[in-house]
Amino acid sequence: MLELDLDRASRRGAPEAVLCDAKSVEQVAAIAGEYARLAAAGREDLGPVLFTRADAARAAAVLAALPGAHHDPVARFLAWPAEPPAPSGGLVIVACAGTSDLPVAREAELTARHLGRPTRLIADIGIAGLHRLVARLPELREAACVVVAAGMDGALPTVVAGQIAAPVVALPTSVGYGVAEGGRAALTTMLSACAPGIGVVNIDNGYGAGHLAAQIARWAPAPPG
Amino acid sequence: MLELDLDRASRRGAPEAVLCDAKSVEQVAAIAGEYARLAAAGREDLGPVLFTRADAARAAAVLAALPGAHHDPVARFLAWPAEPPAPSGGLVIVACAGTSDLPVAREAELTARHLGRPTRLIADIGIAGLHRLVARLPELREAACVVVAAGMDGALPTVVAGQIAAPVVALPTSVGYGVAEGGRAALTTMLSACAPGIGVVNIDNGYGAGHLAAQIARWAPAPPG
Amino acid sequence: MLELDLDRASRRGAPEAVLCDAKSVEQVAAIAGEYARLAAAGREDLGPVLFTRADAARAAAVLAALPGAHHDPVARFLAWPAEPPAPSGGLVIVACAGTSDLPVAREAELTARHLGRPTRLIADIGIAGLHRLVARLPELREAACVVVAAGMDGALPTVVAGQIAAPVVALPTSVGYGVAEGGRAALTTMLSACAPGIGVVNIDNGYGAGHLAAQIARWAPAPPG
Amino acid sequence: MLELDLDRASRRGAPEAVLCDAKSVEQVAAIAGEYARLAAAGREDLGPVLFTRADAARAAAVLAALPGAHHDPVARFLAWPAEPPAPSGGLVIVACAGTSDLPVAREAELTARHLGRPTRLIADIGIAGLHRLVARLPELREAACVVVAAGMDGALPTVVAGQIAAPVVALPTSVGYGVAEGGRAALTTMLSACAPGIGVVNIDNGYGAGHLAAQIARWAPAPPG
Amino acid sequence: MLELDLDRASRRGAPEAVLCDAKSVEQVAAIAGEYARLAAAGREDLGPVLFTRADAARAAAVLAALPGAHHDPVARFLAWPAEPPAPSGGLVIVACAGTSDLPVAREAELTARHLGRPTRLIADIGIAGLHRLVARLPELREAACVVVAAGMDGALPTVVAGQIAAPVVALPTSVGYGVAEGGRAALTTMLSACAPGIGVVNIDNGYGAGHLAAQIARWAPAPPG
Amino acid sequence: MLELDLDRASRRGAPEAVLCDAKSVEQVAAIAGEYARLAAAGREDLGPVLFTRADAARAAAVLAALPGAHHDPVARFLAWPAEPPAPSGGLVIVACAGTSDLPVAREAELTARHLGRPTRLIADIGIAGLHRLVARLPELREAACVVVAAGMDGALPTVVAGQIAAPVVALPTSVGYGVAEGGRAALTTMLSACAPGIGVVNIDNGYGAGHLAAQIARWAPAPPG
Amino acid sequence: MLELDLDRASRRGAPEAVLCDAKSVEQVAAIAGEYARLAAAGREDLGPVLFTRADAARAAAVLAALPGAHHDPVARFLAWPAEPPAPSGGLVIVACAGTSDLPVAREAELTARHLGRPTRLIADIGIAGLHRLVARLPELREAACVVVAAGMDGALPTVVAGQIAAPVVALPTSVGYGVAEGGRAALTTMLSACAPGIGVVNIDNGYGAGHLAAQIARWAPAPPG
Amino acid sequence: MLELDLDRASRRGAPEAVLCDAKSVEQVAAIAGEYARLAAAGREDLGPVLFTRADAARAAAVLAALPGAHHDPVARFLAWPAEPPAPSGGLVIVACAGTSDLPVAREAELTARHLGRPTRLIADIGIAGLHRLVARLPELREAACVVVAAGMDGALPTVVAGQIAAPVVALPTSVGYGVAEGGRAALTTMLSACAPGIGVVNIDNGYGAGHLAAQIARWAPAPPG
Repeated sequence: MLELDLDRASRRGAPEAVLCDAKSVEQVAAIAGEYARLAAAGREDLGPVLFTRADAARAAAVLAALPGAHHDPVARFLAWPAEPPAPSGGLVIVACAGTSDLPVAREAELTARHLGRPTRLIADIGIAGLHRLVARLPELREAACVVVAAGMDGALPTVVAGQIAAPVVALPTSVGYGVAEGGRAALTTMLSACAPGIGVVNIDNGYGAGHLAAQIARWAPAPPG
Repeated sequence: MLELDLDRASRRGAPEAVLCDAKSVEQVAAIAGEYARLAAAGREDLGPVLFTRADAARAAAVLAALPGAHHDPVARFLAWPAEPPAPSGGLVIVACAGTSDLPVAREAELTARHLGRPTRLIADIGIAGLHRLVARLPELREAACVVVAAGMDGALPTVVAGQIAAPVVALPTSVGYGVAEGGRAALTTMLSACAPGIGVVNIDNGYGAGHLAAQIARWAPAPPG
Repeated sequence: MLELDLDRASRRGAPEAVLCDAKSVEQVAAIAGEYARLAAAGREDLGPVLFTRADAARAAAVLAALPGAHHDPVARFLAWPAEPPAPSGGLVIVACAGTSDLPVAREAELTARHLGRPTRLIADIGIAGLHRLVARLPELREAACVVVAAGMDGALPTVVAGQIAAPVVALPTSVGYGVAEGGRAALTTMLSACAPGIGVVNIDNGYGAGHLAAQIARWAPAPPG
Repeated sequence: MLELDLDRASRRGAPEAVLCDAKSVEQVAAIAGEYARLAAAGREDLGPVLFTRADAARAAAVLAALPGAHHDPVARFLAWPAEPPAPSGGLVIVACAGTSDLPVAREAELTARHLGRPTRLIADIGIAGLHRLVARLPELREAACVVVAAGMDGALPTVVAGQIAAPVVALPTSVGYGVAEGGRAALTTMLSACAPGIGVVNIDNGYGAGHLAAQIARWAPAPPG
Repeated sequence: MLELDLDRASRRGAPEAVLCDAKSVEQVAAIAGEYARLAAAGREDLGPVLFTRADAARAAAVLAALPGAHHDPVARFLAWPAEPPAPSGGLVIVACAGTSDLPVAREAELTARHLGRPTRLIADIGIAGLHRLVARLPELREAACVVVAAGMDGALPTVVAGQIAAPVVALPTSVGYGVAEGGRAALTTMLSACAPGIGVVNIDNGYGAGHLAAQIARWAPAPPG
Repeated sequence: MLELDLDRASRRGAPEAVLCDAKSVEQVAAIAGEYARLAAAGREDLGPVLFTRADAARAAAVLAALPGAHHDPVARFLAWPAEPPAPSGGLVIVACAGTSDLPVAREAELTARHLGRPTRLIADIGIAGLHRLVARLPELREAACVVVAAGMDGALPTVVAGQIAAPVVALPTSVGYGVAEGGRAALTTMLSACAPGIGVVNIDNGYGAGHLAAQIARWAPAPPG
Repeated sequence: MLELDLDRASRRGAPEAVLCDAKSVEQVAAIAGEYARLAAAGREDLGPVLFTRADAARAAAVLAALPGAHHDPVARFLAWPAEPPAPSGGLVIVACAGTSDLPVAREAELTARHLGRPTRLIADIGIAGLHRLVARLPELREAACVVVAAGMDGALPTVVAGQIAAPVVALPTSVGYGVAEGGRAALTTMLSACAPGIGVVNIDNGYGAGHLAAQIARWAPAPPG
Repeated sequence: MLELDLDRASRRGAPEAVLCDAKSVEQVAAIAGEYARLAAAGREDLGPVLFTRADAARAAAVLAALPGAHHDPVARFLAWPAEPPAPSGGLVIVACAGTSDLPVAREAELTARHLGRPTRLIADIGIAGLHRLVARLPELREAACVVVAAGMDGALPTVVAGQIAAPVVALPTSVGYGVAEGGRAALTTMLSACAPGIGVVNIDNGYGAGHLAAQIARWAPAPPG
């Protein structure tokens, strides 16, 4: 009853991803083991595979079967094989305001990288200190797509989208309390943004944001330098 | 069964306000008429009175009884007597992004003015065009209190509050559609603001925002010039 | 107090858009008139302008000032000048299930076209009759970006995104009744989609969807043929 | 204060079911013990009884009193006596997309089986890989009723219902995160389905779905083969 | 761009239905006209067609094209051809508490009848007067499926389902005020029902309820007498 | 900073109640200790005091200070002094469907008893088995007030209120899952009840329900026998 | 299909009430006509009947059939026969803050009066001017039950309940805007009240509030004087 | 990647604040360590810093790096340096009803004090015992700004605001259960308040309330005595 979607690469041009937190440790181990088995059997069309939202136990289960996988514990993310493809297409920048949004932002960046894009992470711009954001605009304008992760009021993607020409993927996070608890406030703000050019993904869906950004940047010119 | 609250001035230091849209035209006419009768009878402690959220029919009923009242149809607002008190205390600035939020912003400004503060209205700053906002910062920093009205994503008050030292009264408006319909998205954004120094009022409550701003600016020094 | 954002073209590479339904007829007329005045004055940097969500009265106000504008009454959309730029970049396909979602889908298509992309509208695919959708897959796979508009359960974007390699812009519409009233059900479905590669916009935000799609398709190769 | 509903079989033609997770371990033990006592006393009208949503402690309490019961830990389900009735009526198929929805899907299948229907479980069809679903259609069309369990966006029941003639019981699960957390997104999608022929049950109510499916399939012809 | 789904009969064993209130009068007229044209051309596989949620203007458009259609203004329902198929399968009873829920209940009954089932409407049972409900139980027990429509607290389906062996289709209506406004309270009650054997449809979805009931009763024995 | 409200008895004719779960163990101990101190000092106007929603640790803290208090662990309730007043006024019956709602129902009964009413608890009537409810009607009709506790769909109070002349206090409980999780479904059902004569209290507010019932039954004749 | 519930008087000790706004004018006319017919036929057990939420057209329909009915247009209420029963039991006071809540408050008062209680309406107490409320406390303490109607923040019932010994029926009204729109804010406040002794009814349910108050006051001593 | 916002003091006239509960212990330790390092390096513009919502582990991390910080465990608050500035401006009073709201109230008071205002905490006024509140009015009227913290129904700020001339900062707390769970009921009540002069902050945002109050009281005269 394993769910390998091995033809996804040909159908969608993207690796399979296994959402771990809705599966038991045993189920995750079985899926990782099946990949190991197929690899050992020399299966040729075996693409890369990503494991997302993996806590320590699930990550250990993946690593036991696929010891060569890359594991980022903060992002709760694993990729196998560990090495991302050679970067092609335009630059994907993932931006957030600070340490709280970092795990989800990092998941987005890793996803885009393992889908083959050059990536960069900017983790210290916010709307309270506008001068920092303004100082970063030239850098942000190099990107073919900017993922902006934000919790609390979720206003950062709007501000960024208003200043650049590239599309923005807005990534609400569940960071917040009171009316912002769980990320709904951030989500609603992003959907209501006055500035056009914003595509929104589900709360904490760093994988989805990175995937979309990689698709968007696919045809764009490589970044300068 | 009239609801005149004539001792409010002594108790709270503020004129009575009549919320018109939850009353019938007849009820509004009766209240205005009672004020006219008391004024004609020479009642000395009769303070000023504001009529808010008054549509054309209710405004006409007020003006029939109190022909000297000041009427601002866009703000759906009347004040009697028409002349505001001589301004005292700090400057109240009311800011919004554009024409859609203007009626509520104007209601806030008129309320603050008729409570005795010097006021100014700025109606063309938004977060999409950040440069306009930045250009206005010196002016915004002259205020003892800034009321920021915003619909849609409601992100403007956060951005303003992050740049100035004076308190911000955040005034969500019901301008918007989709998830922003009715103003709940703007309200939630404002309550979730990362920047401190923001007090939020109910959606479309221009009267409450102006009243609070007037109280806040009461002891502040007069604006320069 | 006019809100022309004439530098948007240079800042964002996109024409200004005027959201009409949150403005009075007089306000819309004034904005359109200002464009006419600047054009008559020979202003060189005057880019194209879009008027969205314009009912009959507001559309008439625009046409009175800018008689050469293109008007699509079903989409409640006007563009001035009438002629879109010569198409460049990848193909934008806008797809929906039927007549009810057509106005919003058309607004998305017109926006993408006036931002300079080649566009196509497919209005008869749904998930109840899966065979129709399957038959359209080769055509959908020609697009650099597919906008999928859907009301009711909003499941169509997920199904499409699972079958193609290009990014999907999911556009929920307010078509529906009961729990689907107002489009929240469709919006939530789209945000929860199992398939990655989907960016969601606000309910009925055809303009935003078309704008985002045009940005996404900017660097993609031109469609075959 | 025991709640045995022994006449339910005659009144409704179905066994009693004990919802365990809203009861203490002691209460569950007492109910199971009462069944054991009545059985030992030779009570003739004592029908079968199901214990649902039973965690390990509650399951142990049931098994201590009724050691012959059948226990499925994944489905958190026990049936006493262990053997289901000889199957009669039409085939009930329970379908889901993968491992995450399996516990609830299994609860539905076991319920239908212990109510006397022939059942089958299909756990690998989803809407992202449409080809798998299409390949399963002939099998799905053998059923007199199909229960479709789905979390996240909950779109699978709509797609299935559009392709078959038998009624579909839509079973939302609480699998999901962000806006899909708790299963409300899936529930709303199912209620909004464009395709007719769908009856929806509460989130995670596998028992209710299986019960309804067994009733629906009661009069249908037996499956081929 | 007409949406005739002429192969639905073979695929699903049910006539096409046109949801009128999300379409313009012109769109409805075009669809009805296309049916008339195909009929005049002697198209053989042309099944019956239902028009639901049709107000006066849309009903007139249908009748202009298909003058022989049956029209029930209370149920806002039209069927063409007017004559339902000869009844087969088990009895479908549609029950509600009173006059307010009658339009939706009637839509359910007409749908089931035009899908080929024998039907009956009971419109005077409620839970406040329990004796009336008890008196009707023998009649309700004749049905192969009972559709129960209810607004306000929506408790009637639960009570009915607890007393009979046949499945219940719960049909919430938008009748109600305060917390019951729009039918959400009734819907939630039905989904939370303690009694099993209930499948719920969307608020005011009489068509869906009748369709599901007709499918459920398909294989059941004909009613007595 | 102790919150003893010793004049409540004279002002409201009811003992003080201490809601324990929003206080720390230390705070609860301090309040109980203050009562003990005042009692030891011979304070004459010291009325009885109730401690509600007290878990094991908080109950132990109360019993340490007031060893003579009555403690009901299921209801998480303590009363001091242990002995309720001699019963006066009409009978208060507290009814629920089963074991899950028992803790809250019991809290209601104990409150009414310690406020001086004769009380009775009926814990096995539900709407699925209507015959049990009907058999209990003569008993229910002896009450001056009936508290009906219910979780899940919350339909029981409506059914009871429709059959008796005395007022019903509807007490929603948080028992339920899916859409019924947390008790909101039950609450909404009770507020939407078709039958008049129902007053609703907050979810799980057994204390409030018992208090209100005791007030309602105050003047009623004593129960027969 | 008329819904006369003529045995309600014997079953519940209260007159029938016809909720008019969920019925068509024709349906209301038919019900009123049936009462007239039965009265003309000398039916002896024909109790009084109330018509609630009746707009002008529905009221006219009632008066055409039952010309002797009492009609209060503000309360949208009719009673037949016009004369209430001789008052018995304790005093019911209905209190509200002002003119906006008056229609619903008046509906509650008329209902209690036509159910046989002495009643009084107090329409000028609020929590902003606490001194007015305090001045009214002696009068409020004469009541056997106080109905408190309030919109906006709905805080008045809590304040009243904290000061008196009689039970309070809390009646939220739909008066309000922004977050208070539709009465949900007031309802939630009332359910969350810190003070015990409050039973809440649905928003704008003046009939239900008056009915409950009349039941509560039934056994209480007659008011002084 | 540290987020020190050292120029906030000059930009906003307020110390930096570090929201601890959305950061890991390591991140909090790193930020505190950076302050210690800069202080050791003699950095002159290093303003005071507040650490809010700090549980035991995060507080220990701060104290390890900045041993001289002031720590209030109930308020989960630390300030460095420990000594607040000499008080200037008007008096800030923080008021709440009792022990449950104390932690958040105390956080507000400490924030205002460390921003330089004279402060006082009143923790025993509520609306159930109105006499206590009335007795405190003279004291409350000494304040330049009153922060009122309240959970459950959240009605206290309205009552206070109606009696005094100074602005009120309404601070909803998450204390409550049932419909009041999480503080949304209190928040909504405060936003809907009939009395003007209230600015609302997010649920449990004691820091934000204290910050705003300190800004409001900045220019007011010092309290008497």
